[in-house]
Amino acid sequence: MYCGTVSDLEQQTTPFLRVDLPRFESNLLIMSDALPGTALRPHVKAFKSTAVAKRLYSAGHTAFCCATVKEMEGMASAGLTDDLLLANEVLDARRLGVIAKDGAKITVAVDSKETIDAAISGGVVNVLIDVNVGLRRCGCAVSEAGNLATYARANGLNVRGVMGYEGHLMMVQDRSKQAEMVKDSMATLLRAHESVGGPIVSAGGTGTFDINNWATEIQAGSYLFMDTDYAKLGLPFSECLSVISRVISVAPEKNWAVVDAGLKAFGMDHGNPSVEGGIVGFCSDEHTTLYPPEGQSHVTWNVGDLVALFPAHVDPTIAKHQKMLACDGNRILEEWPIDLRGW
Amino acid sequence: MYCGTVSDLEQQTTPFLRVDLPRFESNLLIMSDALPGTALRPHVKAFKSTAVAKRLYSAGHTAFCCATVKEMEGMASAGLTDDLLLANEVLDARRLGVIAKDGAKITVAVDSKETIDAAISGGVVNVLIDVNVGLRRCGCAVSEAGNLATYARANGLNVRGVMGYEGHLMMVQDRSKQAEMVKDSMATLLRAHESVGGPIVSAGGTGTFDINNWATEIQAGSYLFMDTDYAKLGLPFSECLSVISRVISVAPEKNWAVVDAGLKAFGMDHGNPSVEGGIVGFCSDEHTTLYPPEGQSHVTWNVGDLVALFPAHVDPTIAKHQKMLACDGNRILEEWPIDLRGW
Repeated sequence: MYCGTVSDLEQQTTPFLRVDLPRFESNLLIMSDALPGTALRPHVKAFKSTAVAKRLYSAGHTAFCCATVKEMEGMASAGLTDDLLLANEVLDARRLGVIAKDGAKITVAVDSKETIDAAISGGVVNVLIDVNVGLRRCGCAVSEAGNLATYARANGLNVRGVMGYEGHLMMVQDRSKQAEMVKDSMATLLRAHESVGGPIVSAGGTGTFDINNWATEIQAGSYLFMDTDYAKLGLPFSECLSVISRVISVAPEKNWAVVDAGLKAFGMDHGNPSVEGGIVGFCSDEHTTLYPPEGQSHVTWNVGDLVALFPAHVDPTIAKHQKMLACDGNRILEEWPIDLRGW
Repeated sequence: MYCGTVSDLEQQTTPFLRVDLPRFESNLLIMSDALPGTALRPHVKAFKSTAVAKRLYSAGHTAFCCATVKEMEGMASAGLTDDLLLANEVLDARRLGVIAKDGAKITVAVDSKETIDAAISGGVVNVLIDVNVGLRRCGCAVSEAGNLATYARANGLNVRGVMGYEGHLMMVQDRSKQAEMVKDSMATLLRAHESVGGPIVSAGGTGTFDINNWATEIQAGSYLFMDTDYAKLGLPFSECLSVISRVISVAPEKNWAVVDAGLKAFGMDHGNPSVEGGIVGFCSDEHTTLYPPEGQSHVTWNVGDLVALFPAHVDPTIAKHQKMLACDGNRILEEWPIDLRGW
């Protein structure tokens, strides 16, 4: 909680995103030590900001992955063109073809003849065969992977390898059980890789970065900021992103307080945000009602106070804001535009 | 569901918001018949679009309410300045003062001395005393309302009346029980009004528009689009907003399909969106997995198909997009920028 002292933060329009810069830098460093250079392929969907991407690039992570064409275009515009992977399927790859033609190295995930045809007609040369490794989402069957690679190569594409996201295992809290399940999941991916070839086996995420020993590169992004959901896993990263709000009303008997950040400021799919020194009651569009901590009958917040709330899911929270303010304490050191939103 | 025929919609980048224009116009008309002119104060937070606001203005609704300063500024920029209420508390009213000085009629809700002081120092002249009528959110106690009005008038403000939002009663599904509860809630507001005075008693929402007979004006906005949550109430409005997505992957045994709209495209606080002809499994950042309808083992969607998903909560869904496409069938008739996002 930030009490109403006059400071840089105090002058900002609430609600806004605050990044604790020392913690952010620590998270970045821990991951860079574990997975240096292109052993990490940072996932742009987590932060949607070329300013953040440039910090990762400076730390040696020159290859990135994205979830949307808009993210790919923005990364290319920012000059981060060494190796951009759209880790997702598209049926219209023409906008990717444009940035490839302009000199960016573009790769797209494919899991069907239709998506291969889209890469070809869109002018994208490099593909990864996306393989289903247990998550009920995209990815071909292992038995199809070789056939798709053959089809792609026969049509002039460069098949760089395979991709398989074990997303269903990210939140398994028993880590030894999780490691066993990741091993099985990656065995599936490696079987597909045998029939596909190419140097890349791309997989993983923040929840499995240290136990997925089979991928040649790990796709992770949320580790930079963390959230109350990822915090349950006991990873070596610390939460450093909060939504700063202002108390706009305190109930007559001080049995609750209301801040001006609501469900339009938070990713709500993993539930309510959290607050230090109290309990989050409920979120409305532009309000969150805060109750006293258990065992206490009164809130200690006053009208005008700044209050930090910690989101349950970082990626969609960031996508709701236009900028992040990177701070040391109450001092704002940098402003990072969230410039890769939308589609 | 829109099957993959070539049409205007087919050319759009997915995901995007589609408004069924005939249904939208019917919703608008039904409400205008029930609450003509300023008996309705449309709530801009629901749609965050001056294009939509202008349609309401043309239908005779010249007074609006907003939830954020950004919405107020955008409405003023669009020339919709007749009577703009910020139905929310702020501690910094300076930006409101700027648009008031430029000629807009600006009113702000206040529920404490601090918020009255903010109106005064920000240069806002008109206020409503916000009264708590049962929702654990903003609003003063009934016993305080008169004192606050006196304090405001003593400091030169024009107190136009009271506001009290019975938001805790919007989703009561037994309508006769709901009517009884709204009556009690509004009795509270009217008691406060006795000690405050002024011509306005502002309250209500889409869920109580037809049973709140005590307010002089109803604040409603979601009725224009509706959602799967409001649809449970049996109101006379029909759902007309969907997120149009594209099938990017179909599982090998066709036991699920994946579309390219995920939790960054939907307000998720009321749960998953819905789909015709199937069951929504789960949403990821940029994906939603769709299962076959109960009793069937295969999905009928193919890669490339367009699929409409219906959000569980319309207001935060709209806030995630940059535009709405108003359509008749597959023909796009108008594009409505969502120009009032952020803070």
